Amino acid sequence: MLVTGASGFIGRPAVKALLARGHEVHATCRRAAPGDDDVTWHVTDLLRSGGAKALVRDARATHLLHLAWCTAPGSFWTASENIDWITATLELLRAFGAAGGSRAVVAGSCAEYRWGNETLHEERTPQRPATLYGASKLATRVAAGALCAQQGLQLAWGRIFHLYGPGEDPGRLVAAVARGLLRGERVATSAGLQVRDFLHVDDVAGALVALLDSDVAGTVNVASGDGVAVRDVVEQIALAAGGLDRVDFGARELPVSEPERIVADVARLRREVGYSPAIPLREGIAGTVEWWRERLAEV
Amino acid sequence: MLVTGASGFIGRPAVKALLARGHEVHATCRRAAPGDDDVTWHVTDLLRSGGAKALVRDARATHLLHLAWCTAPGSFWTASENIDWITATLELLRAFGAAGGSRAVVAGSCAEYRWGNETLHEERTPQRPATLYGASKLATRVAAGALCAQQGLQLAWGRIFHLYGPGEDPGRLVAAVARGLLRGERVATSAGLQVRDFLHVDDVAGALVALLDSDVAGTVNVASGDGVAVRDVVEQIALAAGGLDRVDFGARELPVSEPERIVADVARLRREVGYSPAIPLREGIAGTVEWWRERLAEV
Repeated sequence: MLVTGASGFIGRPAVKALLARGHEVHATCRRAAPGDDDVTWHVTDLLRSGGAKALVRDARATHLLHLAWCTAPGSFWTASENIDWITATLELLRAFGAAGGSRAVVAGSCAEYRWGNETLHEERTPQRPATLYGASKLATRVAAGALCAQQGLQLAWGRIFHLYGPGEDPGRLVAAVARGLLRGERVATSAGLQVRDFLHVDDVAGALVALLDSDVAGTVNVASGDGVAVRDVVEQIALAAGGLDRVDFGARELPVSEPERIVADVARLRREVGYSPAIPLREGIAGTVEWWRERLAEV
Repeated sequence: MLVTGASGFIGRPAVKALLARGHEVHATCRRAAPGDDDVTWHVTDLLRSGGAKALVRDARATHLLHLAWCTAPGSFWTASENIDWITATLELLRAFGAAGGSRAVVAGSCAEYRWGNETLHEERTPQRPATLYGASKLATRVAAGALCAQQGLQLAWGRIFHLYGPGEDPGRLVAAVARGLLRGERVATSAGLQVRDFLHVDDVAGALVALLDSDVAGTVNVASGDGVAVRDVVEQIALAAGGLDRVDFGARELPVSEPERIVADVARLRREVGYSPAIPLREGIAGTVEWWRERLAEV
């Protein structure tokens, strides 16, 4: 098994899940490799031309889980680096197919859909991304589908929705609120009436690994299937961290581009892949707050 | 005006049409430039990294007509070079936008649609390409739409249907039948019951140039809007070239992937762009046969 972006937010639990299933893991990271003896690390920059070819030749894996992409909070929606990741991803799939790889799972995004109020379904929902990030993921999906079909490489595409958990970038919602409250600060949020589909990062990783181990092809939503108002998520964070009175709901404007509801249809993930999330939201949030409490205490 | 692929089948009449409208034309070609004094030629390989940046810097154009792509008859449907053209096209649009370009027209394809029996419409017809070529064009369309929107670069996407005319690659239908019959050979074709939408290459070029000169944004079908059975086209070629009795209809199997009907809805082209084809099929075919007759006589 070859995992790209393996030192990232989803990559770390994905590697753990693969090891737990008894797989041999080759993993990529851009800078110095984490000191993990169970994993063969490949330090590589996939954005550099030729990087993919050398990587697949060295790793000689049959299965690929491609998570690497630009993810800097906020800026990733519009970063022109998204365009480079289209190229890098197609280059990687081409090299992997040419080297005899048999199956690939790539991280897609709910941002590929036209966001509306209906529950987002792999086949039925129109794909009309509102952002360069979503368009770049979808463009990659379109080209990769035809490329892999032609190469005889099985492709599954996991459309990831909202996620949270230990190790999240401090610039993202759950981490930002948890850290702020734990530090005794005031926290400004939107009114939080928008409904999102949150899944713990360990479940995101678990679902992607289950998908990789399955023979399901095509697009699969990776999500909980449950809509929850962002306000409720913030309240659950405050329940664990304390300081609900320090949350200023409505102090931040929600960008007009943010839709009211982004919730996944998860029938494919549950029935075809056979994956059901293990971590309920309340428990996942409490664990995440605990993780941040320990980290902040260390400083 | 900057035109890529300017020495190609559509590129040559497109350059002529731009000159006829009084535009200054910068044109690219991969090898030695044709000796055309009215045009500033740039010999460049857009598949080479950095090529696009140098090109837009040298040309300093406000408008871009991007026609370059891999087009070798037969093999272009599956060539992995299609993937390279996704990258090259996005790279070119990125460089053109960064250099202050204001409007781009890119050559798309009817192969981006799900081919069915309904008339293919820019908005209503689902986009489900059956080939790597179609998928690569569509992937580029998806990413380019978001990229250009973000850069403030106006983008129009001309989806080209079937075309024919002087200078066509001898491996393609009309040219192959015309040359074969003119040489007195027997010509093997399919039964020819499939219906296609044929447009003379001068009209394809004229439509793209009209689109470039307009302020219409988004996708526009570039086609005649008239469905004609391939058998009728072959018969019209034979009418001009002689030798209908030397056509073996049905001697070739039509690949099962070939749909019964590929016909465009052309309301956008006619009403919004204001372009109506000038060359009726019968006249266009006769002129094309004449063109081949002269070329073959020269040899």
